[in-house]
This record gives sequence, C-alpha cells and structure tokens, in this order.
Amino acid sequence: MTANTFGRHLRLTTFGESHGLAMGAVIDGFPAGVEFDVDRDLVPHLNRRRPGQSGLTTSRKESDSPEILSGVFEGRTLGTPICVVVHNRDARSRDYDPNYYRAGHADRVWEEKFGHRDHRGGGRASGRETLCRVIGGSFARLLLPEDLRLVAFVRQVGTHVARDLPDPLTIDAVDAHPTRCPDPAVAETIAEELRLCKEEGDSRGGVIELQIHDAPIGLGEPVFWKLKNALADAMMSIGAVVGVSLGDPVAAITTPGKDFHSGVSGDGPDAGISPAASGIQGGISNGEPITLRVFFKPPSTVGSMAKEGRHDPCILPRAVPVVEAMAALVLADLHLATASNRKFSLPFAN
Amino acid sequence: MTANTFGRHLRLTTFGESHGLAMGAVIDGFPAGVEFDVDRDLVPHLNRRRPGQSGLTTSRKESDSPEILSGVFEGRTLGTPICVVVHNRDARSRDYDPNYYRAGHADRVWEEKFGHRDHRGGGRASGRETLCRVIGGSFARLLLPEDLRLVAFVRQVGTHVARDLPDPLTIDAVDAHPTRCPDPAVAETIAEELRLCKEEGDSRGGVIELQIHDAPIGLGEPVFWKLKNALADAMMSIGAVVGVSLGDPVAAITTPGKDFHSGVSGDGPDAGISPAASGIQGGISNGEPITLRVFFKPPSTVGSMAKEGRHDPCILPRAVPVVEAMAALVLADLHLATASNRKFSLPFAN
Amino acid sequence: MTANTFGRHLRLTTFGESHGLAMGAVIDGFPAGVEFDVDRDLVPHLNRRRPGQSGLTTSRKESDSPEILSGVFEGRTLGTPICVVVHNRDARSRDYDPNYYRAGHADRVWEEKFGHRDHRGGGRASGRETLCRVIGGSFARLLLPEDLRLVAFVRQVGTHVARDLPDPLTIDAVDAHPTRCPDPAVAETIAEELRLCKEEGDSRGGVIELQIHDAPIGLGEPVFWKLKNALADAMMSIGAVVGVSLGDPVAAITTPGKDFHSGVSGDGPDAGISPAASGIQGGISNGEPITLRVFFKPPSTVGSMAKEGRHDPCILPRAVPVVEAMAALVLADLHLATASNRKFSLPFAN
Amino acid sequence: MTANTFGRHLRLTTFGESHGLAMGAVIDGFPAGVEFDVDRDLVPHLNRRRPGQSGLTTSRKESDSPEILSGVFEGRTLGTPICVVVHNRDARSRDYDPNYYRAGHADRVWEEKFGHRDHRGGGRASGRETLCRVIGGSFARLLLPEDLRLVAFVRQVGTHVARDLPDPLTIDAVDAHPTRCPDPAVAETIAEELRLCKEEGDSRGGVIELQIHDAPIGLGEPVFWKLKNALADAMMSIGAVVGVSLGDPVAAITTPGKDFHSGVSGDGPDAGISPAASGIQGGISNGEPITLRVFFKPPSTVGSMAKEGRHDPCILPRAVPVVEAMAALVLADLHLATASNRKFSLPFAN
Repeated sequence: MTANTFGRHLRLTTFGESHGLAMGAVIDGFPAGVEFDVDRDLVPHLNRRRPGQSGLTTSRKESDSPEILSGVFEGRTLGTPICVVVHNRDARSRDYDPNYYRAGHADRVWEEKFGHRDHRGGGRASGRETLCRVIGGSFARLLLPEDLRLVAFVRQVGTHVARDLPDPLTIDAVDAHPTRCPDPAVAETIAEELRLCKEEGDSRGGVIELQIHDAPIGLGEPVFWKLKNALADAMMSIGAVVGVSLGDPVAAITTPGKDFHSGVSGDGPDAGISPAASGIQGGISNGEPITLRVFFKPPSTVGSMAKEGRHDPCILPRAVPVVEAMAALVLADLHLATASNRKFSLPFAN
Repeated sequence: MTANTFGRHLRLTTFGESHGLAMGAVIDGFPAGVEFDVDRDLVPHLNRRRPGQSGLTTSRKESDSPEILSGVFEGRTLGTPICVVVHNRDARSRDYDPNYYRAGHADRVWEEKFGHRDHRGGGRASGRETLCRVIGGSFARLLLPEDLRLVAFVRQVGTHVARDLPDPLTIDAVDAHPTRCPDPAVAETIAEELRLCKEEGDSRGGVIELQIHDAPIGLGEPVFWKLKNALADAMMSIGAVVGVSLGDPVAAITTPGKDFHSGVSGDGPDAGISPAASGIQGGISNGEPITLRVFFKPPSTVGSMAKEGRHDPCILPRAVPVVEAMAALVLADLHLATASNRKFSLPFAN
Repeated sequence: MTANTFGRHLRLTTFGESHGLAMGAVIDGFPAGVEFDVDRDLVPHLNRRRPGQSGLTTSRKESDSPEILSGVFEGRTLGTPICVVVHNRDARSRDYDPNYYRAGHADRVWEEKFGHRDHRGGGRASGRETLCRVIGGSFARLLLPEDLRLVAFVRQVGTHVARDLPDPLTIDAVDAHPTRCPDPAVAETIAEELRLCKEEGDSRGGVIELQIHDAPIGLGEPVFWKLKNALADAMMSIGAVVGVSLGDPVAAITTPGKDFHSGVSGDGPDAGISPAASGIQGGISNGEPITLRVFFKPPSTVGSMAKEGRHDPCILPRAVPVVEAMAALVLADLHLATASNRKFSLPFAN
Repeated sequence: MTANTFGRHLRLTTFGESHGLAMGAVIDGFPAGVEFDVDRDLVPHLNRRRPGQSGLTTSRKESDSPEILSGVFEGRTLGTPICVVVHNRDARSRDYDPNYYRAGHADRVWEEKFGHRDHRGGGRASGRETLCRVIGGSFARLLLPEDLRLVAFVRQVGTHVARDLPDPLTIDAVDAHPTRCPDPAVAETIAEELRLCKEEGDSRGGVIELQIHDAPIGLGEPVFWKLKNALADAMMSIGAVVGVSLGDPVAAITTPGKDFHSGVSGDGPDAGISPAASGIQGGISNGEPITLRVFFKPPSTVGSMAKEGRHDPCILPRAVPVVEAMAALVLADLHLATASNRKFSLPFAN
C-alpha cells in the first residue's frame, strides 16, 4: 500500500492512527517564500473541523494544536517539505478485544486485508484522519489566486434542502449557524432533527455543496487529470462520501440536450462557454463558477452506542472544511501544473 | 501537462488526436505470460464502442483495427510495455477556420489553455479518445480473477429508468438491445425517444450502472487510493460524465441512519459487513456486490449540426464498454497493488 | 513492472522489442506551441545513433524513419502526448531455439524473471531500445534555454584517452571523426584498435564525457531529485554503462580537501561557488560548466559471433547521442519542475 | 519542488532542516504484520551514523532518539504510513547574518534557487538529512530475504586502499575499527591521516564499497528502473557522493572485451551468467554477488573552521550506514515491485 499521498506537484502525505500518538501531514512541492502564520493560516481551519464545536456534534474534545516541525522559517515557507504534527489527546481507547468489530465500520475488512490493525479505534479509517487533509488544504489555499473564492456549505441534511442562500455566499455566512447550513430556516429544522437523532441514536446523511468562484481559465489537465475527476477523486476519498457531481446530477440526466445547452451561444467565434458546464469544459475550468455536490451517507454508529454522545449524528457540519481543504489541494496542484503548460512561461525560456 | 497516464502499478498511457494519424495506448506494468489473442480479447470490446453500430448512434464508420506494436509475443504478454495503435480513417476534418469554436464543446477553453490546438476536430477532447481506454481495459480484464463479474448497462436515459432486470445480468443480456438497456420495455421506449432526438437534433443524458460481482475482499488502499475514489476518478475522467455514486445517492442522503444501516448485524465478532455499503467499506471491497452509478449529461451537439447524423444523440450505449474498461483498469491496478500488502505474500519472503 | 517511463514532469515512455514490429516513444508533459520539424529536430539525432554509420560499427542497416502519430500539428506541439514510432526492418531474427542463451547477455536472467521472452533477439535488453531515448531527448532539447550547450564525446576507449580537445568543443568537432573522439590523433589510434577488434572478434569499453555549458543556476530539486543523481540515474539506465561520475572520480577521492577546494573563495558574502563542484552544489546547478563521465564496459559479444560484423566492437561512438539525449531529458524535466518553485512565478499568482 | 520522496512501491518521504525542530521520515507502502522493535531494528543503525562516535569524526553530540508516531502497533507494522521523528537538540545555530555563505557549501545556490533559506545551518543540504535515510533503510531491511547480506565498508580514503579483507566480510568486522575500514593495517594508516587532517583543518574523500550477497535472481525492472541505475540514483543523491560504479570502473573501461568476458561460458543452454557483470545483467540481479563503489569527495569545510572540531574531516565512516540504508531501500522497493511481475503470483490470480 502506498496510498497516503495526494497530489502530483503539490503532494500531501498523511499519517497517524486515531488512537496512536499523533496525526500528521507532510506537504512537499510547496513553493518557497510564501508567508505563513500558524494562528492565522492553519488553526482557524482546524477549529472548524474540531470535535465538540456545538451540541450537534460529538462531545469529544481535541484541542488539535498543530506543531510545525519543518519547512517554515521566519514566517515564510522554505520550499522544503512542511511537516505538521497534531498529537492525539482525548483518545479513549476501547477495552474490547481485537476480535470485536463495530457494525458498519471498516474494522473487519481492514482486518481481512492487513491481518493486523490498531483495534483501539478506527485507525486510519477514522474520521480523525481528515484533520490531516485540513492541514494540507490550509497550505494549499495560500497558493490560490487571491480573488478565487472557495466556499462549501451544507446544502441538504436528510430531506431538508437549503434553498434561500445569502448572496454573496461567504464562509462567515456559512459558519453563522452550527449546522453550516446558510439558509437560516432550514438550518433550524436540521438542527432540531439532529438533536432528535442524538436522543434516539439515529444519524443523518446529506449534501455538501462546494462553490468555486473566479477560478482562472485553464485549470485541469486532459485526459486523466481533468479538474472534474481530480475533484471527484479528492471528495470520494473522504470516508463517508458516497457520491459526487458537477452541478445537479438529476437535472443533467433528465433534461433534454436542447434545453440543457440552451444558454450556449451558437457555433462561431464567440461560442464555447456553456453555462450548463458548471464551470468545467473538456475537463478544464472555463472561468465560470464551479459547483460541486458531495453526497454523504449517514454515520454507521447508530443505536445505543450513538447515544453515548461521543459520535456525530451527522458529520456534514464538520466535513465542510474538509471538502474545502480537498478542493484547495486540487486547485493548487493543478495551478502548479499549469506553470509548465506553455514554453514561454518557463523561467529559463528563450 | 503530464496527464495522459492512468493507474499506478498498471499504467495506461494514451495518445492521439481525433483527426490525427492514429489513436493509441501503451500499457506498462502488465505481468508477463498472460495469454492474449487480439480477436478474442480486444476486438470485441472495441466493436462495442465503435460508431455506427445501430441506427441510434452516429453514422460515422470507423473500422478501428488495432495493431499490436509491442509487448506480446507468440500469444503471450512479455512483461514489457504493450503498445496498441488504431489508425484514424473516417476523419473528415471540417474546413472551417481555427477561430471557429463549436458551441458547448471544449474548443475555446482548450485554445485558451494551450494556445494551439488541432482545430480539425475535438483533438484529445473528442469522444474518440475513449477508444484507448477500451484498449487498456481489455488488457486489464485479463488480470482479474476469473469469477469476478463486471457488467455495465444503461439504467436510465432521460426520464426512462430500467427497473425490470434479468437475473443474472450478463453482457449478452445488455447487448441484446442496441440501447444496452436490459429492460426490454424501457429499452424500446428509449430507442423511440432517441430516434426522435435524431430527427429533431436533440440529445439525451442518463445513467450507466456498473455492477461488480464476486470481487475479492481487500481491493482498495486507504486513504487516498480507496476503491471508491479510484472508481470515481476513473469515471469522472470520461468526457460527458458529470457525476458518480456508490449505490443510489438519493437514498444515501435521505434515509435515516437507523434504516440505512438496518441490515448490519450488531457489534461483535460477527459484525462488519454492511449491505448498505454497496460493497465497499473503509474504501476496501468487502466481498459484497459493488454498484456504481455514472451520470452523463446530454451531448452538446444539438440543432442543425446534430441532424446531419454524424453525432450520437445519446452516448450511453457506446459508453457502456468505456465504463467497464475504466472499472477493469481500476480493479486490476488495485489487484496488483494488493500483491505487496503483506510480507508473506512476497516472492522472496523469508 | 512499470519501469518504462522516465521523468516526472516531462515523461518519456518507451516501448518495443528489437525484433518486434516497432520501437516507439510517447512524450507526455511537453508544453504546447513549441515549433517542431521532424527533419530538423529529430532525424539528425537518430542518424547519429543509427547502425552502419562507419566501418567501425555494426554493418546492420536500419533506416530508422520516425513517424509522428500524435501531439504535433501544423509544425507545433499541441501540449498533448507526442507518439513517435520507428518500424523495425532489418531485424534478422535468429533461428535458434528459445532455450539458447547468448553468453554475457541478459537472455537468461530475463527468462528467469519473466518466464517468457522474445527469443528472436534482445527484446527490450537490446541496444536498439536506446533509439527511443534519442527520440525523447530530441524533443527535450527544444525546451532547454538556447544558450545552454550540451555536448558529449568519446573521452577514452580502452587505454587511449583524448587530451587535446578543441575549444570550444562543438558537436561538429565531435562528429568530425567516426569514433566521435575530438582529439584527432587519439581518434586515429582508437579507430585502428577498433578495426583490429572487428578482425579478432574483440571489443572495447571506454568513457563518454558529457559537458553542459551555460546551464541556468537552480536546476535540481533536493534531496532525492538532485541534478547529479538524476543524471546518474539517467546514464546508468543505459545498457552497457557501469559507472558515472561528476568530474574525475579519481581526483575527487585522492585529492586532499584543502587542494580540492582551493579555488573556492573564503566564507562570506561572496563565497559559495566552488570550481571543484563540477557545476553542481547541494545537488543544484551553480551556473558553472558541468562535467559528467559515463563509463561503458566492452560489449559482451566477442569471438566468432562478433566477427560476423553485425555487432559493434565498441558502442561508444553510437552512444554519444544517447548520453546527450538522456541529459537533455533530465535538464528539461528539472527545468519544468523549476517553473513552480516560487509562488511569484506561477501564472495565476497574486 | 516535490523531491523529498524516494522509491515507488516503498516510499520514503523525508523532512526537516538541520537547525529546525526535528528531522523525520514517513515510510509508506510498507506491508502490514512485519515485526518491529525500535531498539533492535532502528536505534543501532542510527547509532552507526551518529556524530561523536570516535575521535575521528565531529565532536557534535546528537542523541538522535527516534519517536515512532504512527504505523506500528503492538510490535508489528500496520500497513499504514510509519512516521518517525528525531528532534534536533545540539543544533548550535550560527549567529552570522543571512547573507553569509559558507565556502564550498550549497548556501548560495540554495539562496538563488529558493530566495529564502534557513541560514542557521545547511537546512536540507546538511549531512544531518541522511539520518532520515537511515530510518527508511532500517525498515526496508526488514523486507529483504533473510539470507541476503548487505554490507558496506570503507575501501579507500585518499590514496590508502584496503586490500586485505576478512572473509566473510561482516558488519561486525567493518565496525571493529572506527574508520569502518576492515583491513586493519590500512585502517590504522587512515586513522592516522584523519587525525592529522583534524589538526590541520584538512579533509579527505574516498570510496565506500557495497557488497550484496545472495540477492535473489530477478530484482530490477527494465528499462528505466534497472537495479544498477536505481542504486546509482540512490547513492548519488547522498550529499558528498560524486560517482558510483558497478565493480571497478577502471577495469571495465580498459580491459579488452575478450578478457573482461572471459569467465562467461559459451553460448548455449548453459550460458548467460557473467562474472564480469558484477551481479547485474540487463539491469536485473543474476544471483551473483553485487559490488558497488561509491565515490565521495572530501568535505568542503577546511581551514580554520574545520579545526574547531564540529566537522568531520572525512565522512566515509559515518556514511557507511547511509550507503547500506539507500541500498536496502532500493532492494526492498524492487522486491515489492517483483511481487506483481507474473500473473500466477498475484493473490487473486485464477
């Protein structure tokens, strides 16, 4: 298995078992000279993912204080690998024996595959692993064009769909409610449902929507590293994600082509940009807003164990920064890739 | 851009512009000694993708005869890179000037990114590129366990959904109708709708469903090379695909956790396998059937140009073997990866 | 095995068995818009490697006409993978049985490893494989800064060492003699010795020296992709190469440090560039000339078979363009890598 | 820059600046279930590289206590990434200003390349970086066949060459003298010369020889991942290494082919294994002993600063475990690669 690195030019390698000593990330390929302040550029993102943010999430407490072991010096990156470690603290390992598998979890299949696992918790299959993605994404953001705006939010939980969104949609607007659903009325309904879930040991899935505004034209490398499959790859690697779509998949499959593509100007010198493309054509960003939907199944911890409070009845609120982090990693990686697309852009070109 | 290789252990590199001399594929990392016969193992798959198979698809004709340039000797693979080339023949290049962009196509964004493109056709952004994926998948299939069964079919076109499926679902059953929809009644409705589309210059999207039966337990490498994100990556790299999901995404997001996970046995030594997991837990195959849905938007060629007949009103029938090919590549690649998971499985282990 | 790709940003994938249908190369990651003319930019390099150039080399004849299958359109690269194929023509396959192994060749070990091989010739272990490297290098050259000068030559054959070199040393000066030794007197001695070798079925090894002038400062990525180990990797992957050194290895190991580093200015603001470094410090080019020595063993075909004339008594003259090609690939690849070293150099930087 | 990962199947990622908080390594792709004990399997190797081992080396003291952050549980590897961190303690950072460059060091070229560096020490260009390689190599060794024997030793320092070697040559025999030269008489001469060097602020280069005994047949993946170029790549990435050769390069270039290949049996069913091949044919191990020579230049710190005692007058004794570590990484990586060479060796093969 050599599967703990994400990215090509910007490479995030993560490590750590949920009940081991520490979680961590090494970011390689990060340019030199980029200003970085841990309290400004990293801690806020970790805090958005942290357990125990509200009554709607797990009651576990993790301070999640990052330690920068390398790659940053005097407030700027060195162009060398950046290692960030977060020690595990509130990891109450269960006492039960190694042959005990939690229902619906990866415990058994992990055991079958590897023959040996850290049975104190989910190990690498724990949601705690996403902490390392947020670290990587926090650095990746620093490479993005300043006017590029990346915002994820809870679009749907169970059957409740946010429809009335603030414009512009900002991270502050998203964070205004603990559900991270920016439609205040729907947010309240969702919050009520999640409180009930906690009481009843039930859980909920839903949809996180990611919007990318003002992405430059040209991100995405055909044919196997298109922007759309890079994003799908990134999102589907998150534990509970079961689907991903560019725009609304139901509309795309059911709308006749003439209607779906109706906004496109006719063939000719001015043709090309299609509003139906959700910002990506031929796998390449076309300058229009990009909308991605990420589908989460409900957490598998249900019943009596779920009632203990150390589990999230719905991980979507805490997954919002994870979705943003994965998107930032993809965008920054493709951004770096773009640097060598044309000869005249090379530093030593003729 | 260095994006024309797919896979890690088994690596498919594709090349070719739709209106250039040839399309081709190089497959590296393929084990030695595997029997291969071009007419048995490759041509049938190419024929399933070929244009001009029925009145429902484009009227273009491409014989698509593959030439094996390397890597196979006396009917068996050599362990060296396999190069397969298919010359382009029926490529009537359009006469119009380089500054003419087709509506809804990648022409313009490609021009903006690269500054130079093969304006005679879609180049690498043409659907013809998928021919190379079918070549790769044809070889990948030969590495899969014999009892593993991989079958894709048209589940939905527009609003018409196949519900009444043969059991077992076989490739022959799928190919029995030119729509590759194995529900005969729905297939006829779809066929009728597509004939109308051709007349009216309209187009249709839909859903291809992929079923993987009897996959071995243990395919998938956490955390960034899980089986589910590898499949999502593979599928979303196909031109017209706008979404992908493990199982039914709507059910996953709307069903309460207690119901969604109801089939899971309780915690304990016997727990673990969840039917709701659609065959993948912790990113690893659990031995249960895997169901993947792939969402296609309608082709962007609509209106007068679509009426000329050289375009598919719906690419799903011809995309079925492409979806299978990409799945085979993912499965074979993870299969090879699994070979070095445990020390005792190594050839020179102690 | 997935080992037929060289490079990271600029990726050369080669294929082909010496007695199969064709040899070929796919170059991915090559920027768009670079002017390319096959007769100007590729054929001359292939001709320098071709068999049958003079009485000193094999009498085999290969026209080695390259066919560009993709990636170039109207005289400029497309930014898509470039595939070049050269068909094998003068491949007289031997008649002997598969269990016959040539002494000193890779035949047996290849058989043991793969269990199946193309016994008509050396397969991938043939020197003919280097043709594909020359193809790759021909494209790579086009990415290098115009004033960078790359020249390889035969420094030593057997015990004869070229000492009296023209200044400046040009490719024309190297090609002036069929031995590619630019010291005319030594060249003649070598030529005489090689004629004798052909008569007696003997063979000779030697040293090719590579000089790189006016490389920009900054090529090389610490710590595992330094310029020096990238070059060593590239050269040692050539069949008959048994050693590689930056500058003169004997001087480096026997000269006391005080003398070896005597040309270095003292510590301080002006310090740093060391003439003893042979142009590479900390693995990074420092702007000074780079000298690399590549050590070749004598060909293993000796005795009666060598007298038949279809083997080179010394491969160094024909290996000169191969060494240059591998160097060009390394330099161009690191050049592309450098494009994303600093944030301000990114195309979409703030 | 994305250059801090070594290996393909077994991947070592290293991080850390010499005067930063810590050095570290992440090893990914390591199989599950391998027994590991830090005091038995890691600390001894680190101690062999540690500064301050004898009067011949630097007087710096580093305890170099490794902390295993992940990937090992209850004495066995988990198949997850293994992170090992060593905190820097005796890092007396110099006071001088950022514009001060040490003669012969990478300081200036690093500054030119990255525009920002950790001017307190060599950063990533420090020899301290090799500590992380030893960590990686210590794990890699655990994957090698038990009877494979890997031993490196000091063959030459300056003009003094070890000739009288113990048979068998063991690590204990090598470590019997602080020079790690196993020829006792020559070892004493070398020791005397190095003591003089310390007094006079001089330094010495030399040759480390690596012997690999009882490697299995079949390690090495043609054509760009041969065993020989993988080893060259690995060794030349070490700071002070300026050359590498398979066997004796001078003999290979000066000996006539008939003599060089004289030990090879004639063509035919029994032919193939050549003693002149130094254990590698066609880039693949042939079962014979492999001998690699690694050439080091003298350290560039000479003169008054060298007399302070915090620098090694000759790094070869401490580089011996580094050479072994890099070799172990290469061998283990190719071993893992071999696992998927033939279909019948796959875990889910038919």
